[in-house]
Amino acid sequence: MRIVVFSALGGLAAVACVLMGAGNAVADDFVPGVVSSNGTITVPRVDYRKDWAFLGTYTADGGKGIGFHSVYSQRETVAHYRKTGVFPDGAVLVKELYDTKSGDLTTGAVRWASGLVGWFVMVKDSKGRFGENLLWGDGWGWAFFKADAPDKTTTKDYKTECLACHEPVRATDLSYTQGYPTLKGPGR
Amino acid sequence: MRIVVFSALGGLAAVACVLMGAGNAVADDFVPGVVSSNGTITVPRVDYRKDWAFLGTYTADGGKGIGFHSVYSQRETVAHYRKTGVFPDGAVLVKELYDTKSGDLTTGAVRWASGLVGWFVMVKDSKGRFGENLLWGDGWGWAFFKADAPDKTTTKDYKTECLACHEPVRATDLSYTQGYPTLKGPGR
Repeated sequence: MRIVVFSALGGLAAVACVLMGAGNAVADDFVPGVVSSNGTITVPRVDYRKDWAFLGTYTADGGKGIGFHSVYSQRETVAHYRKTGVFPDGAVLVKELYDTKSGDLTTGAVRWASGLVGWFVMVKDSKGRFGENLLWGDGWGWAFFKADAPDKTTTKDYKTECLACHEPVRATDLSYTQGYPTLKGPGR
Repeated sequence: MRIVVFSALGGLAAVACVLMGAGNAVADDFVPGVVSSNGTITVPRVDYRKDWAFLGTYTADGGKGIGFHSVYSQRETVAHYRKTGVFPDGAVLVKELYDTKSGDLTTGAVRWASGLVGWFVMVKDSKGRFGENLLWGDGWGWAFFKADAPDKTTTKDYKTECLACHEPVRATDLSYTQGYPTLKGPGR
């Protein structure tokens, strides 16, 4: 993760560039591989399953069967959160959504992740870099992706599509940290 | 992960050392921080939550409430498995066992990991290093640990305490790989 510090002056200059139609100067180096210069978000172009840290799994029954939500973030983000209790600028949360299978195995009734359904991606932006972009606000970028299109979000407006589900955890920066043991410390 | 290749001759020599009472020469460098020279297994003395790869979560209802089992392994093990379809010698599987909490949140009925109950640890041993040690056999070392004692296993004999639960997945080297998406490839 590369964290770029924008000065107040730099921020103003960047806004000026947008107004002048030179949007590609806004934040080229903000979170490479995840956020483009104009604030477009993609599923991280890295092997996050192998190279990032797992935060935790939620199971969710929204009425159409039980799904798993498994969340990953950069290892640097974990280190920073453990030290400070907050997500650093540039933190990425990748939530994989899975259908599940179940069966009676030797340990009882068990369930596991089967097909990937899609991703929710959140990107921490402490600087308000992307102005009126409807995927950005409340300190984060927000985007959902179907499993077959990791580079093209279906999200049009985070306020109507994302925020309602996250509003109950505004006190923990809109993230469901209660289910993320990795943020609390090492396993042993 | 450091993978030590034992020659057939070296293996014989090591066995001879055990017979001569010089057991500390058997496998000092096999999996440092996890396996001692005489085959004692501990929960890995590393920050596996942050620095290793997550393989997948199972939920299990054994009659006393639903628990989560979340499994981690070394990133090198993931890379090797993806390439070859088998676990390398020295692969460590750390399965965290959690109690869970549940609630009706905005996405429906959800459940998440709460208190850590303990760990199952498996260590791949392709060489049969530890002879008659009752924690080793069928290609693995096996040990369970309660949450308050990561250095002292309660397991006495893997054949009676561990193997029955894993027998159904002997075809996948006694590991429940069907629930480990990370072994199949990157997320995108």
